[in-house]
Amino acid sequence: MKFTFLGTGSVKAAPVYGCECSVCQRAMANADFRRHSACGVLEVAGLQILIDAGYQNLEQKCPPGSLDAILLTHFHMDHVQGLFPIRWGTGKTIPVFSPDDPNGCDDLFKYPGIFDFSNKSQPFEAIEFKTISIMPVPLVHSKLTMGYVIAFKGKRLAYLCDSGLLRRDVEQFLIDHPIDVMVLDCDQPPLEKAPRNHNDLTRALDIFEAVQPKQLILTHISHNLDEYFFNYPDILPEGVAIAYDNQSWEL
Amino acid sequence: MKFTFLGTGSVKAAPVYGCECSVCQRAMANADFRRHSACGVLEVAGLQILIDAGYQNLEQKCPPGSLDAILLTHFHMDHVQGLFPIRWGTGKTIPVFSPDDPNGCDDLFKYPGIFDFSNKSQPFEAIEFKTISIMPVPLVHSKLTMGYVIAFKGKRLAYLCDSGLLRRDVEQFLIDHPIDVMVLDCDQPPLEKAPRNHNDLTRALDIFEAVQPKQLILTHISHNLDEYFFNYPDILPEGVAIAYDNQSWEL
Repeated sequence: MKFTFLGTGSVKAAPVYGCECSVCQRAMANADFRRHSACGVLEVAGLQILIDAGYQNLEQKCPPGSLDAILLTHFHMDHVQGLFPIRWGTGKTIPVFSPDDPNGCDDLFKYPGIFDFSNKSQPFEAIEFKTISIMPVPLVHSKLTMGYVIAFKGKRLAYLCDSGLLRRDVEQFLIDHPIDVMVLDCDQPPLEKAPRNHNDLTRALDIFEAVQPKQLILTHISHNLDEYFFNYPDILPEGVAIAYDNQSWEL
Repeated sequence: MKFTFLGTGSVKAAPVYGCECSVCQRAMANADFRRHSACGVLEVAGLQILIDAGYQNLEQKCPPGSLDAILLTHFHMDHVQGLFPIRWGTGKTIPVFSPDDPNGCDDLFKYPGIFDFSNKSQPFEAIEFKTISIMPVPLVHSKLTMGYVIAFKGKRLAYLCDSGLLRRDVEQFLIDHPIDVMVLDCDQPPLEKAPRNHNDLTRALDIFEAVQPKQLILTHISHNLDEYFFNYPDILPEGVAIAYDNQSWEL
């Protein structure tokens, strides 16, 4: 399995439009530090699977015909906006696995175009797609949200975004099914009180301790968290990394 | 006044994702022939006014602080999608003039960010904005839609997109208030029957005859209309032109 981040930013992405903080100025000056909205591509068993679709110009990253399926965590705009410009395309229909949220986003369900939204991810009901197994796990967010654990040839990738803390049953599932690479949203530097819809760094590291994946990668990074990492470059324990756009992880 | 098109494509834009027609292949090979979604910038009286916001990467075309106002014709995604990625920005609030559509698009009204959506355009109720006058004119479309006639120093630009035909009162208003440049949506080559939500070329030229603007510019061009123009390069009468992305018109 190879997972490539296309977007690792929080809902504001980076640079934040008009922001003059050092992190946003750095992202303006050097594209390597830009963070697009939540999006990634998983290559596994000869398949290409898009996980979340926040990248605005998907046609540049995913040529027509390249995508075999899409996994959506939820229907917030910063996780689906890349679908709108390409939905009116031609060619094979792309199956989309998404939470059973009747509203979707804007008129995506009314005009699905090349997408098939009929595949509803149910908590802990495994999806067998071609030769891979995908387990949807319910997350805690302001919209109905599902994380995904993808297993292939004894390796497991967990993509958990967006979530405030983890449900007990999800935590137990991840302990019982050891995770090689866990991608987890971490929106903020350590906060006194746990935020409701995302992890701050304190809670993300608590999850790392509890679940003990081989590798934890933090994504959905806000500009203030990036600034925190800039000020505390050695703050992360071994086995925990910060995600960057266009970065790939193999497992 | 100077009007620059940022996007002149139909809802499918060009190239259509996965389309192998000659027009889409040309647009793939040469960026000059690409058509983004409906969007333009009007420079007038020292102001910059965005008209529709379908361009996906507005931060590249409209640096922070550059926009004084936004006029939206309606809340279809291909006319507003550029607003989502920049709404969480910082800096001055940007007034948006839009039809009084209670739904807006997705959660734009719930989370307006840097935009102020409180300015509702009412049919034939002139908006006095700084030193310019903007007249909203109701269009005929599948969503509540408003065209805009912008007057400054004796010149008038009419931006009418999207519309199937024109209402009689709008046609009369445009006759009574001579138009220098009229931007009109024209989605399709000549069709036997008038389409419901857009003009085909036959109906667009009928409007040209009836209203007699000095210059008619056709926008919201589909790939099949582009193919038609490729096959009939001399089909347009004098005073009628096809819009292209990044093209500017002064008046």
